[in-house]
Amino acid sequence: MDSFHFYAPTYFAFGKESEKQTGALVKRFGGTKVLLHYGGGSVKRNGVFDAVAASLRQASIPFVELGGVMPNPRSGLVYEGIELCRREQVDFILAIGGGSTIDSAKAIAVGALYDGDFWDFYTGKAELTRALPVGTVLTIAAAGSEGSPDSVITHENGMLKRAASSDEIRPKFSVLNPAFTCTLSPYQTACGITDIMVHVCERYFTNTKDVEITDRLCEGILKAMIHEAPKVIQDPNDYEARANIMWAGMVAHNNLCGVGRAQDWASHKLEHELSSLYDCAHGAGLAVMTPAWMTYVYRHDIPRFSQFAVRVFGVEMDYADPERTVLEGIERFKAFLHSIGMPLTFAELGAKESDIPKLVEVLGAGDALPIGNFVPLYAEDAAAIYRLAL
Amino acid sequence: MDSFHFYAPTYFAFGKESEKQTGALVKRFGGTKVLLHYGGGSVKRNGVFDAVAASLRQASIPFVELGGVMPNPRSGLVYEGIELCRREQVDFILAIGGGSTIDSAKAIAVGALYDGDFWDFYTGKAELTRALPVGTVLTIAAAGSEGSPDSVITHENGMLKRAASSDEIRPKFSVLNPAFTCTLSPYQTACGITDIMVHVCERYFTNTKDVEITDRLCEGILKAMIHEAPKVIQDPNDYEARANIMWAGMVAHNNLCGVGRAQDWASHKLEHELSSLYDCAHGAGLAVMTPAWMTYVYRHDIPRFSQFAVRVFGVEMDYADPERTVLEGIERFKAFLHSIGMPLTFAELGAKESDIPKLVEVLGAGDALPIGNFVPLYAEDAAAIYRLAL
Repeated sequence: MDSFHFYAPTYFAFGKESEKQTGALVKRFGGTKVLLHYGGGSVKRNGVFDAVAASLRQASIPFVELGGVMPNPRSGLVYEGIELCRREQVDFILAIGGGSTIDSAKAIAVGALYDGDFWDFYTGKAELTRALPVGTVLTIAAAGSEGSPDSVITHENGMLKRAASSDEIRPKFSVLNPAFTCTLSPYQTACGITDIMVHVCERYFTNTKDVEITDRLCEGILKAMIHEAPKVIQDPNDYEARANIMWAGMVAHNNLCGVGRAQDWASHKLEHELSSLYDCAHGAGLAVMTPAWMTYVYRHDIPRFSQFAVRVFGVEMDYADPERTVLEGIERFKAFLHSIGMPLTFAELGAKESDIPKLVEVLGAGDALPIGNFVPLYAEDAAAIYRLAL
Repeated sequence: MDSFHFYAPTYFAFGKESEKQTGALVKRFGGTKVLLHYGGGSVKRNGVFDAVAASLRQASIPFVELGGVMPNPRSGLVYEGIELCRREQVDFILAIGGGSTIDSAKAIAVGALYDGDFWDFYTGKAELTRALPVGTVLTIAAAGSEGSPDSVITHENGMLKRAASSDEIRPKFSVLNPAFTCTLSPYQTACGITDIMVHVCERYFTNTKDVEITDRLCEGILKAMIHEAPKVIQDPNDYEARANIMWAGMVAHNNLCGVGRAQDWASHKLEHELSSLYDCAHGAGLAVMTPAWMTYVYRHDIPRFSQFAVRVFGVEMDYADPERTVLEGIERFKAFLHSIGMPLTFAELGAKESDIPKLVEVLGAGDALPIGNFVPLYAEDAAAIYRLAL
């Protein structure tokens, strides 16, 4: 196990009607004027926005609004949010939505206290040392951004999708009401489930030895997802299954199960180019790319992939032919993803073989290559993995 | 899953030589004068104290000392520590040791800012709303106090062992260097392992339905312990196994795996009377009491105990006779505890059958009964469980 730091000081209010605590929580964490940041307006139609606004009013906290966050959130709205915060002297950003809205809120939070271009933090040009406090009211179990130090933004100048990470942008609090996720479509739900599972896989496939405790936590999250996912696909209003998935989504990405071990993140990077080019759902892109990545790299560590197959998917170990065990594990992962309605191929996603050179080119822009840590991947590897996903 | 709050803002510095960060961490969390609190002096003999003191000096942070914490920490030293803090205008308590030292430090931290008797917080007479900040340098993986909001103290007036709990006494930071635990005897090590596992069991046996994610996290911790424990019993200097156990000890008790579900804690309460009367090691007492508790209550929920046996101890499910599965699971737990050198009976622990009435009487003092939540236990139940442990 490697040495590490772990600091996850987000306050979670979880359960039915937990949104009623929002106003008190903003106050507790020092907010006196709030930017309410949200997406395409579904939170206005389904009552979530009104419930949160009521809680703020009850706590006598004034707010301004900025809606319009799109999946794969863009820089344009971030710049707009930064201007709005300065103009209105906002001192707290409250995201109502999923990972895209939260990531956009985090970007606004860092930009509002920085004289230069917020994008500097996403290109590594500047070090992220301060930000306005951020809170979240989560409506999609997926990205884990409600408990993570990460933010991913796509810059409209070149459509580059890049991440920033710092404990400064971990939310001060997150309100998690599983009932809010019941209005998601089965497809959105499945995309979230896939994202949660791949967050675990990115940590699971490591070259760090002797990581039994985090291995077991990772496996536990994956098995819980396999157990709960079919329930919400069958019955979107299954509150209990929604609750299990919602908490799993946080635990999968606040890094408790990833400390002390090298992490990979190649599948995410391969996917980011897909969602950047085609504007597909991130989870759907991951469903296509992660099994392809596994198929490309598994020979690097047959015992670890055997462990994954046996412990997570219940494959019976073939001691005479471990590779059969590994391949059966990957097949079961694909079958699971297919069973919840996820695409597994470029064709199902609407991606094109002819775009592979372009995907690889953008992936490698700057000094981004190699990607991944379990197996460092260069342009030809990335191209091969994209082809495996055709 | 029940509604819940979760807030665990402890900063963890984990790994080799992590103690060198102590001074900087005290500074980061606002300490300007420190009480160094420790136990019987082993931290002075093995160099841990000197390493921590050197880090404080390097950060120019003055400190005073108070050693002498005993296992099952007592009120007398707490009163002494409170006086010392006031006299010396200490504003930060740094515990160097295991759960006893940390719990004593937490008690001093609350008492130092309270005009009345600190014991008021342990009897429920006063509400814990503020405390001096506490940091820890952990030397025993066991109690989980390094990441928990809990403190257990034995009052010398009546030898009552009682707990206080509040986010105010969660440590601001904890330094976890697994190498510090390599000097523990196999017996101390096994006591710690038992404590960690029972912290999970107290959460696992619940009447709350639909708790798959926390079930799986609990099972993951238990399986990691079963995997790692034999390694450190065989080779006390196995750093990697020590590291896995140390992180497991924190995760087992910071409540991440216990949120959203009713918890039991009867085994701990039954044990507290044993260690209070005989001054035995808490972990050893738990090894005696927890399987006895399981044997007494398992009929309340055969499916849950079957799940425990199958998922944690790999028992093959006997579908025709689930009770056989359950009993085999309890037997395997006992065999595991025995294999790491733990006692399983009153006799092995040095406890006496003739003391059972006294144990039950003190257990029920005040309005403490019933204990437990999975199955509420009254005096006659407690007596029966103590007898099962003979």
